Amino acid sequence: METRMRNRNAITLLLAVGTVLVVATTVLRAQGSLLQRAKTVFVPLPKVIASPDNPITPEKTRLGKMLFYDTRISIDGTVSCFKCHWVNLYATDGLPRAIGNNYKLNPRNAPTVFNAAGQVSQHWIGNRTSVEDQAKQALIGPPSYGLASYDDAAKRLQAISGYRPLFEQAFPGEKDPVNANNFAKAVAAWERTLVTPARFDDFLKGDTQALSGAGQTGLTAFIETGCAGCHGGAYVGGRIYAKFGLRQPYANLTHSKEVDVGRFAVTNKEKDRYVFKVPMLRNVEMTSPYFHDGSVPELANAVKIMAQLQLGVTLDDDRTASLVTFLKSLTGQIPDDALEVPVLPPED
Amino acid sequence: METRMRNRNAITLLLAVGTVLVVATTVLRAQGSLLQRAKTVFVPLPKVIASPDNPITPEKTRLGKMLFYDTRISIDGTVSCFKCHWVNLYATDGLPRAIGNNYKLNPRNAPTVFNAAGQVSQHWIGNRTSVEDQAKQALIGPPSYGLASYDDAAKRLQAISGYRPLFEQAFPGEKDPVNANNFAKAVAAWERTLVTPARFDDFLKGDTQALSGAGQTGLTAFIETGCAGCHGGAYVGGRIYAKFGLRQPYANLTHSKEVDVGRFAVTNKEKDRYVFKVPMLRNVEMTSPYFHDGSVPELANAVKIMAQLQLGVTLDDDRTASLVTFLKSLTGQIPDDALEVPVLPPED
Repeated sequence: METRMRNRNAITLLLAVGTVLVVATTVLRAQGSLLQRAKTVFVPLPKVIASPDNPITPEKTRLGKMLFYDTRISIDGTVSCFKCHWVNLYATDGLPRAIGNNYKLNPRNAPTVFNAAGQVSQHWIGNRTSVEDQAKQALIGPPSYGLASYDDAAKRLQAISGYRPLFEQAFPGEKDPVNANNFAKAVAAWERTLVTPARFDDFLKGDTQALSGAGQTGLTAFIETGCAGCHGGAYVGGRIYAKFGLRQPYANLTHSKEVDVGRFAVTNKEKDRYVFKVPMLRNVEMTSPYFHDGSVPELANAVKIMAQLQLGVTLDDDRTASLVTFLKSLTGQIPDDALEVPVLPPED
Repeated sequence: METRMRNRNAITLLLAVGTVLVVATTVLRAQGSLLQRAKTVFVPLPKVIASPDNPITPEKTRLGKMLFYDTRISIDGTVSCFKCHWVNLYATDGLPRAIGNNYKLNPRNAPTVFNAAGQVSQHWIGNRTSVEDQAKQALIGPPSYGLASYDDAAKRLQAISGYRPLFEQAFPGEKDPVNANNFAKAVAAWERTLVTPARFDDFLKGDTQALSGAGQTGLTAFIETGCAGCHGGAYVGGRIYAKFGLRQPYANLTHSKEVDVGRFAVTNKEKDRYVFKVPMLRNVEMTSPYFHDGSVPELANAVKIMAQLQLGVTLDDDRTASLVTFLKSLTGQIPDDALEVPVLPPED
């Protein structure tokens, strides 16, 4: 009797151990395969976003960071890059649409400049080819810095004499380095260092513990729901253009006050009507409000709207929460350097 | 012959050594007496500007610094303390007059918040009793944050749930700590740490080498011209009120577009017409443009105008330059903590 009990206990124990082993192996294999699967869609962030046309140097980034903060260059003394890209709000401004000089409303929501240099283009409709192009055109953008010309920009930069040696160091050998082109190069070089690695990157590099169970479930949902179809790569988006509202007009579900023709305004081609650059989802948790017009403030709501508009999928609250959990794992570390504001030279 | 030559050489040497000693002693005595004289007018900056009503704690300053940067509390999402007090522009905004929510023009130039807590009052006409009072009233100031009420401010603060634990830690034991009063206390506690010691403080503490010869000449001129009569104390001003334009109407020399009645607007007493708080001159080099209406951008020009308006003295270019050299020795070190921007909690 006792022996039979002991045998039965031993068998129960063996079965239990076996079950644990099978479950553990399955989980590991599943994690392994989720990682494999994720790696076919995403890559970790680079350390900096290099460009052969504008090499990153310490002299350039030091100057670029200062210029990023200098309102005195703008037409009314209120606009700097920082005005719409508060680095401590993850380089956005918390507004539906950005506000420029003389309180002029910009056509669209200010996208973050963190990790931005890696995208196919800049701005929601891709009408800026690079961060260099964006920084330069901002100087004469009517709802941005509002300057009359690049010459005017150069004059304003030259009027703060403390900048001259910094431009000379950043652009050695140039005769008149204090100009709009170099303003743009310096600002953009600094932006190319604003990369925010996150838990998700650790996961992609093989540390499967970096994402919680819920985070991994969310990642699976992100891939299986179809989000990753557009939001892939190192930036979880920012690589392609797509029509906003594939299944139905976007304004059916967003709280948009007007309808934006999107990239049609750039190309004048019918196929680009309502087409926008697919935004990066890096730091999306921190960059409310959402969409090109900032019409939706809540992340969960934005996720639900996207699933309906683009995939025709109605997400329940659980799956939405799961996707949001994954999206939060994209919130990265802001480089220390970006969180130190640079003291600016005084006006003469 | 040789002996006589040697004697003559020895005498020449003795005379030379004697002269050097006399000169050195005179210089040292003069330096000593300039230091003595300066100490009757000025005192070095304190480390922080403490207040029994609002003790400085790390929890309070951490929260206060975050709130200082948060635009999302304001009526249109564009105003924070930082908007008019860019810490990297020495806590001013470079504008003649500050611009608030919905691009509303403020009545006067934004004064720096560095060292500000030590002044007799806040704002140009002393209509804010303390930095706490200033921070609180800014929330409902029509050209500032523009909120309808302190309750509205509390609701906006409560809507960013990440603030709740920070308020609880900063104000332990309070039942509903997320409110406008505590917003003001936290911001002001942080501002009370924004003290910028300069070379001039080292000099006042006895290091006579801390000011160059030109700086000491400038300091002497500052005292002897009469500037120090009003601009004294730890903050080189900020202690008393005085009529702007004692010798002639100020608008004769400034480029003021309109005439400001000054403190008369607060007290309604005739004696306060054109009376303003004497501004601190700490960091004056870095806080152009000058005067209550920011009507004069050049420091040297502002110095000349002040001498004429207040003292009836016409300064020549040399004496002006000398005064400016001294004033530049008041440019202080911004605390490291102030130059690190705080990451803000996301909107829910």
